[in-house]
Amino acid sequence: MVGRSVITLDDLSIAQIRELLDKAQYIDTHRTQVAHTCEGRVLATLFYEPSTRTRLSFETAMLRLGGKVIGFAGAQLASVTKGESIADTLKTVSNYVDVVAIRHPKEGAALVAADAASVPVINAGDGGHMHPTQTLADLATLRSRFGRVNDLTIGLCGDLTFGRTVHSLIETLCRFGDVRFVLISPKELRTPQYVLNRINATDSCSYVEVSDLSEVIGDLDALYMTRVQKERFFNEDDYLRLRDTYILDEAKLAKAKPDMAVLHPLPRVNEIAKEVDDDPRAAYFEQVRNGMLMRMALESSVLGDELPGFAAYENKEVAA
Amino acid sequence: MVGRSVITLDDLSIAQIRELLDKAQYIDTHRTQVAHTCEGRVLATLFYEPSTRTRLSFETAMLRLGGKVIGFAGAQLASVTKGESIADTLKTVSNYVDVVAIRHPKEGAALVAADAASVPVINAGDGGHMHPTQTLADLATLRSRFGRVNDLTIGLCGDLTFGRTVHSLIETLCRFGDVRFVLISPKELRTPQYVLNRINATDSCSYVEVSDLSEVIGDLDALYMTRVQKERFFNEDDYLRLRDTYILDEAKLAKAKPDMAVLHPLPRVNEIAKEVDDDPRAAYFEQVRNGMLMRMALESSVLGDELPGFAAYENKEVAA
Amino acid sequence: MVGRSVITLDDLSIAQIRELLDKAQYIDTHRTQVAHTCEGRVLATLFYEPSTRTRLSFETAMLRLGGKVIGFAGAQLASVTKGESIADTLKTVSNYVDVVAIRHPKEGAALVAADAASVPVINAGDGGHMHPTQTLADLATLRSRFGRVNDLTIGLCGDLTFGRTVHSLIETLCRFGDVRFVLISPKELRTPQYVLNRINATDSCSYVEVSDLSEVIGDLDALYMTRVQKERFFNEDDYLRLRDTYILDEAKLAKAKPDMAVLHPLPRVNEIAKEVDDDPRAAYFEQVRNGMLMRMALESSVLGDELPGFAAYENKEVAA
Repeated sequence: MVGRSVITLDDLSIAQIRELLDKAQYIDTHRTQVAHTCEGRVLATLFYEPSTRTRLSFETAMLRLGGKVIGFAGAQLASVTKGESIADTLKTVSNYVDVVAIRHPKEGAALVAADAASVPVINAGDGGHMHPTQTLADLATLRSRFGRVNDLTIGLCGDLTFGRTVHSLIETLCRFGDVRFVLISPKELRTPQYVLNRINATDSCSYVEVSDLSEVIGDLDALYMTRVQKERFFNEDDYLRLRDTYILDEAKLAKAKPDMAVLHPLPRVNEIAKEVDDDPRAAYFEQVRNGMLMRMALESSVLGDELPGFAAYENKEVAA
Repeated sequence: MVGRSVITLDDLSIAQIRELLDKAQYIDTHRTQVAHTCEGRVLATLFYEPSTRTRLSFETAMLRLGGKVIGFAGAQLASVTKGESIADTLKTVSNYVDVVAIRHPKEGAALVAADAASVPVINAGDGGHMHPTQTLADLATLRSRFGRVNDLTIGLCGDLTFGRTVHSLIETLCRFGDVRFVLISPKELRTPQYVLNRINATDSCSYVEVSDLSEVIGDLDALYMTRVQKERFFNEDDYLRLRDTYILDEAKLAKAKPDMAVLHPLPRVNEIAKEVDDDPRAAYFEQVRNGMLMRMALESSVLGDELPGFAAYENKEVAA
Repeated sequence: MVGRSVITLDDLSIAQIRELLDKAQYIDTHRTQVAHTCEGRVLATLFYEPSTRTRLSFETAMLRLGGKVIGFAGAQLASVTKGESIADTLKTVSNYVDVVAIRHPKEGAALVAADAASVPVINAGDGGHMHPTQTLADLATLRSRFGRVNDLTIGLCGDLTFGRTVHSLIETLCRFGDVRFVLISPKELRTPQYVLNRINATDSCSYVEVSDLSEVIGDLDALYMTRVQKERFFNEDDYLRLRDTYILDEAKLAKAKPDMAVLHPLPRVNEIAKEVDDDPRAAYFEQVRNGMLMRMALESSVLGDELPGFAAYENKEVAA
C-alpha cells in the first residue's frame, strides 16, 4: 500500500483490507506503542466542503500516530479556489505534506487530486461517490463485534436507493463473500438493480427484500440503520405511514438477538431513539472509534510507517 | 479533579481553586519542566460561536503542555449542527480526544455536553453563563500581584448590571471571603440585588456603591474595569454625561495607589486609554497570560496529568 | 536576526538574506537533523484575510521544525476584529506564542503589529505591500537552479505595472547587483518609473523593455511569468490581441535555453500552459517548496534557534 492513493475501496485488495482490520485492532490495544509511528509526518486535510466529523477523525488519527496536521475547511477555501485548479493545489500541497485527505463536492475530484499529487491521497468523500473510510469503519465494527465480516446475516434498513453508504458496504462485503443480506425498505426506496446484480454475481451471498423491520429483526446478526428522508416520498401520507416502521427503538429491539449489533453511519436524526444508546447492542459510537482506528491504519500504511510491534503480534495471531 | 467536568466554578472547591492558582504560578516559572506533561493527549475545542481569544488560549495551553488540538470554530460548524444534537457530537468527539473545551451561544449547552461526554468538558462560555476560566484568570492576576486573593479592597467599575464577568468574580471572591467591594457604576447600571445579597451573606465581605471613580480610586488595591455600552442607556444625554467618568486614563490613575492593579477582561474599546498600557499598574495583558496559565493548570488537572516537580515544590512552599 | 520582526526585505541585510538562502539549502538536505530545531515553540498565523497557500506554507514550516501552530483565518476573525485593535490583539497573542505571521488587507498593518508585539512578527502580506517571504522564495529558486542570484539575465513577463511581486524581486536583486533585466509587457502594463530608477541607481544592473516574449526568450536565464488581467486593458480588442503573447507554452519554450528556469508566484490561471509543467525548465512548484524552506530558515532565525549541524556545514562550504 506504500505510496498508494485510496480513492475507492477497489484500490485495496481483500488481503489489504484484512491487514487494515488487523492493524486497527492492534492500534486500539496498543495506543502508547503506536503513538510515535508517524513522527515527522504531516497530513493535509483539504476539505472543499465542510464535514467536521470526518475531518476531525482524519486529523485525530494522524495526531494519535505522532504526526502533524495542516489544512482548510469550507469557509476558508475561497483563496484556494480563486482561479486555481485542484491539480495545481495538489501539486503545491505535495511540497508541504506527506499525505492528503481530500473532501470535495464534485464526483471524481479525489481522483484528479491523486493524479496531480506526488504524495498519497485518501478520498474523504467526493460527491456522488462514497468515501471509502466510512465503509472501512463499518467493516471494523462488524469485525470487533463478531470477530469476522462474513458468515453473517446483515440487515440494511431505511433508504436503500440513495444511501451510498449501504451500497458501498454491500459491494465490499460481496468481495469477502458469505453474507446473507436482508434489505429492509419501503418499496419507494428499494435497493437499485445494479447492487442486487452484484450480490447475485457472488457464489456465496444472498439477499431478501422486505418492508417490515419488526418482522425480520430477530434473524439479524447486525442491523445497519439509515435515515429515511421525507423528500424521497411522493406524498406525505406515504411518508407518515412508513416513517415509524423505520425507527429503531427499544420495543423493536426486544425482538432482536441479544448480541445483534446496531450500526449507523451518523449523524442520525430520529431513526434511532436515544433510549437505544444505552443498549449494549448499540454499536454506532464504537463505529466512530473504529473509523478513527481504520484511518490510523490507512494513514500509516500508505506512508509506509510500520506500527511498532505489529509484525510480531500478527505472526503470533496467525500461529495461534 | 481528575476526570471531572468544569461547567461553573461551583464545580471546584476553594481548595481546588487554590491548587490551580499554585499550579499556574509553578507553570509560569517552570515552562520547560512542564512542556511534556500532557504528551499523547488531545484537546477538542468545539466553538459553536467564534471567540478567537478564548479558543487560542485553550489551544496554546494544551500545546504548551505537550498535547495536541483538534476542533472547529464558528463558520466551520455547519456540518456539525446539521441535524446532530450536541449530545451526539460529544459522544462522537469523546472517541477522539481526552478533554473538550466547549463554547456555545445557548445557556446550559456546556452542561448538556458534559452529561453526554465520556471525557472531561470545560465550559469556555455558554450564553448567559460566564465561562469559569475567565474568573480563574482574574483570581490568578490578583494572586500574582498581591500574593493573595483576599484582604483586598477591590473596585469594580462600569456596567455592573449586565457584566457577567464581574458577577462571577464577586461570587467567587465571596467564597474566599475578606474582600471589600467598591461597586462603581452609573445608577442605571448598578449591581443586581442577588449579587449584593451574596456579599451580605458572607461574614467577612462588605460593599459600598458609588458612582464616581475618581472619588474612590485612591482607596483601591485593584480596579476591575468593564465596558459601558451606549445601548444600555435610556437617552444619549445620560450616556454622554456619564461616559467619561468611566474611562480610565493617566489623570485618574494619578490619584491611585502606586501598586494598584488595573484588570479588564478584554477586549476593551476605549474604557482604558492606551496611555495606561505602559503604566506598571496595568495588569490586563498579564491577565491574558494568567488565563493561559490557569487553563494549563485546569487541563492538566482534569486529565490527571501531574506537573513534573510540582508536588515537591508545593511541599517546600508549605514548609516555608 | 534574533528577536527581529521582518516587515519588508529592507529589514534584512544582503548578508542576512544570503544566510537565509544557505540555511534553506541546508534544511532541504538535512530534513531529519532540523526536525526538532523549534521544539517547544509556538507560531501564531493571524490571517485577517484568507490566503490559504501562504498560511499553509508558514504553518508547515514551523511544524517541520518541531514547533506548533495556533491561529485564525478569514471567516473566523469576526470575534477578533469586534472592537479590538490590531495592537491589542498582538499584545494578547504575544502572551501565547513565540513568533507571529500576519496577513492583513491594509497597508501598514504588519508594521503596527510588529510595534505592538513583544515577539517577532513576520509580514505574510499586507495590502499594497508585497510579502517579503514571496521574494525570498523567488531568490531561493534562482539560487537552487543557478547556484547564485546574480550574473543572470532575468526576464519578467506580463503585468509589470501592478505586479508587486516583480517590483519586490527587482528591488531586491538590485541590492545583490549584476543582473540584466528584460522587462516584457504590453505598453499598457509597463514597469513603473520608480522601479526603473532603482535599476538605474545601481552600478551593475541594466534593463531593456520589450513587448514580445518570443523575441527575447532565447536570451534569458530565468523567466518570471505573471498574470495579465483582462480588466487592466482599456478595451477588449487590445486584450484579445495581446493575451496570447503572454502565455507561455511549449512552442515558445522551444526557443529558450535548455536550462532556463520558469518562475511564477502562483496561483496561475492560464498564463502558463499545463504542458509546461512536465518540462524540466518549469521551476514554479520548486518555488513553492523553496518558499516553505525559506520560511523555515526565517522562523528559526528570528527565534534564535540554531539549526543543528548548520554552523559546521557552513564553515565547510566556505572553506571548500
